[in-house]
Amino acid sequence: MGQESELTPDERFRRSWRGEKVDRPPVWLMRQAGRYLPEYRAVREGVSFLEMCRDVERAVAVSLQPIDLVGSEAVILFQDIFTPIPPMGVDLDFAPGPVIAEPIRSRAQVEALRVPEPRESVPFVFEILRILRRELASRHIPLLGFAGAPFTLAAYMVEGQGSKDFSVLKRMLHREPDLLRKLVEVLTEMTVGYLNAQIEAGAQAVQLFDTWAGLLSPAEYREWILPTHREIAERLDRAEAGFILYVNNGAHVVDAMAESGADVISLDWRVEIAPAARRFGGRVSLQGNLDPCALAAPRDRIFELVRELIAAAAPARGHIVNLGHGCLPQTPVEGVRAFTEAVRTL
Amino acid sequence: MGQESELTPDERFRRSWRGEKVDRPPVWLMRQAGRYLPEYRAVREGVSFLEMCRDVERAVAVSLQPIDLVGSEAVILFQDIFTPIPPMGVDLDFAPGPVIAEPIRSRAQVEALRVPEPRESVPFVFEILRILRRELASRHIPLLGFAGAPFTLAAYMVEGQGSKDFSVLKRMLHREPDLLRKLVEVLTEMTVGYLNAQIEAGAQAVQLFDTWAGLLSPAEYREWILPTHREIAERLDRAEAGFILYVNNGAHVVDAMAESGADVISLDWRVEIAPAARRFGGRVSLQGNLDPCALAAPRDRIFELVRELIAAAAPARGHIVNLGHGCLPQTPVEGVRAFTEAVRTL
Repeated sequence: MGQESELTPDERFRRSWRGEKVDRPPVWLMRQAGRYLPEYRAVREGVSFLEMCRDVERAVAVSLQPIDLVGSEAVILFQDIFTPIPPMGVDLDFAPGPVIAEPIRSRAQVEALRVPEPRESVPFVFEILRILRRELASRHIPLLGFAGAPFTLAAYMVEGQGSKDFSVLKRMLHREPDLLRKLVEVLTEMTVGYLNAQIEAGAQAVQLFDTWAGLLSPAEYREWILPTHREIAERLDRAEAGFILYVNNGAHVVDAMAESGADVISLDWRVEIAPAARRFGGRVSLQGNLDPCALAAPRDRIFELVRELIAAAAPARGHIVNLGHGCLPQTPVEGVRAFTEAVRTL
Repeated sequence: MGQESELTPDERFRRSWRGEKVDRPPVWLMRQAGRYLPEYRAVREGVSFLEMCRDVERAVAVSLQPIDLVGSEAVILFQDIFTPIPPMGVDLDFAPGPVIAEPIRSRAQVEALRVPEPRESVPFVFEILRILRRELASRHIPLLGFAGAPFTLAAYMVEGQGSKDFSVLKRMLHREPDLLRKLVEVLTEMTVGYLNAQIEAGAQAVQLFDTWAGLLSPAEYREWILPTHREIAERLDRAEAGFILYVNNGAHVVDAMAESGADVISLDWRVEIAPAARRFGGRVSLQGNLDPCALAAPRDRIFELVRELIAAAAPARGHIVNLGHGCLPQTPVEGVRAFTEAVRTL
């Protein structure tokens, strides 16, 4: 303890992703700015999700809410993973999930995709980040940016919308692998530029969300997903910023996640964290991984689960306490508060 | 090879689940009687799914179709996992997924559940099995029965319908564990009687489908799921019949599956089969595990994938070739044919 007990939240966060000594783990929650908060719903009222993303003032407001309302110790940019997609020439809407007007199925469509300069095509993203960074400076709270991973974006673009099986996507993977590869390459190029512009605008770490990578078998993951993560890990401007990799439903590919070159791998609750911490916690920090549904448990039980989680992750060089997936709309606010409080009072 | 090369399909199947020597693995497909077959759609036409399940003649017809149409080497009873639920006193409908009229949320509702004698409450199930067994005898094709697992049935009954997160179910797990436990116990009781009646009616093996068990963390799985599987494994009449356990999206709980007492564990495509075969293939046979979406691949590629799969599973005492999940409606029939042919011509 000693000196470390006076760490500011941003110092604690930075040390955690770097694998340096800390007094205790930091805590934040995926989708912490969300519908479970009445104050979020108030700001959201009468505005569509897409409008919210482009409305700098509202996006800043909801990004900041979780600090005081639930005791989160990091702020993540309020935005959608699809924000950089329309400027590539792909129309989409939310109904309420993303729906691609013309799903990408042909070579001509892939070749027509543009990779515009993000500072020009989605300037509001960087304005939101710059404002947040200024607001957070005096409070020493770290600021995170994020992007959807290339394969996950490709999955939606090919399938046209969310799906249980993504059979159209997988049909392309099996019948036209070169076409899918080209699409993933274009999206990787876009993602690198988009995340680097976020770092330039003040993000102290960026998280890549690979929501659908877990649909693949371990062999397919190594062929299709791991190289994209590695390329992003190599090309990000990481002089100051950390790189967090999240794969949803990825318990079967955790070993490959640890080879991505990310500073932190963010695990869902299906992953037993103690063996993961022992296996590769020496070379990569861990984030996660309480089941969001567990925040419905009584306060004492949440405290117990958090204590167990932190103890299980202890062999890792660093641990950022988080959920295994985003906060659900029906999550009780008092459960979220208990979660962050349990970490702080450890 | 030698003698084993003259094995009948039912002998090959029986030896495989018992872990005895065979000439080559047997092959069948989950949801092989399904909408991907035009002949299935023809029988289904103008009849609701629930009517189909109770219509002995039609159910027998579609159960048999996959033998000649796609070369499957086992027949599974056409039925739904919810068949035994309405006689317990729970109204449900399909819209098209299952919808429970009054989701189970209270102690009074759980206490009101009945466990009727299945031969009286759903006699058509056993009539279908008896007819199938007679039809299959001369062809030496094995007959499988099945049931939904207690936790999966409980998940639907509490949640009211399918769900991405099953947060209502998990809320009960965290806030009223005793109530959920009581519900799972009643359903376990029902399932044992239902499967034993299927074995009595001619099923040579039964498969338990735990579709939602994979939603739990490994620790929760060991607390909530494994005991139900063990109890069923112990109480089934297994003098002649095999017991196959399938857990959907269960890559993180495969070790616990292997401790269930089942003869065969059926894995989805997220599980790397070679290490599984080495770890516990000596004490349990494996079933699976090609991604159903891979049946969209070109014929040569399907052959290659099947060859790799069989080679990877070789260290196990037995292997039943199957998919990792049910056949999808959009699966090309020629892909299914290539899949069974690849196994036969190995």
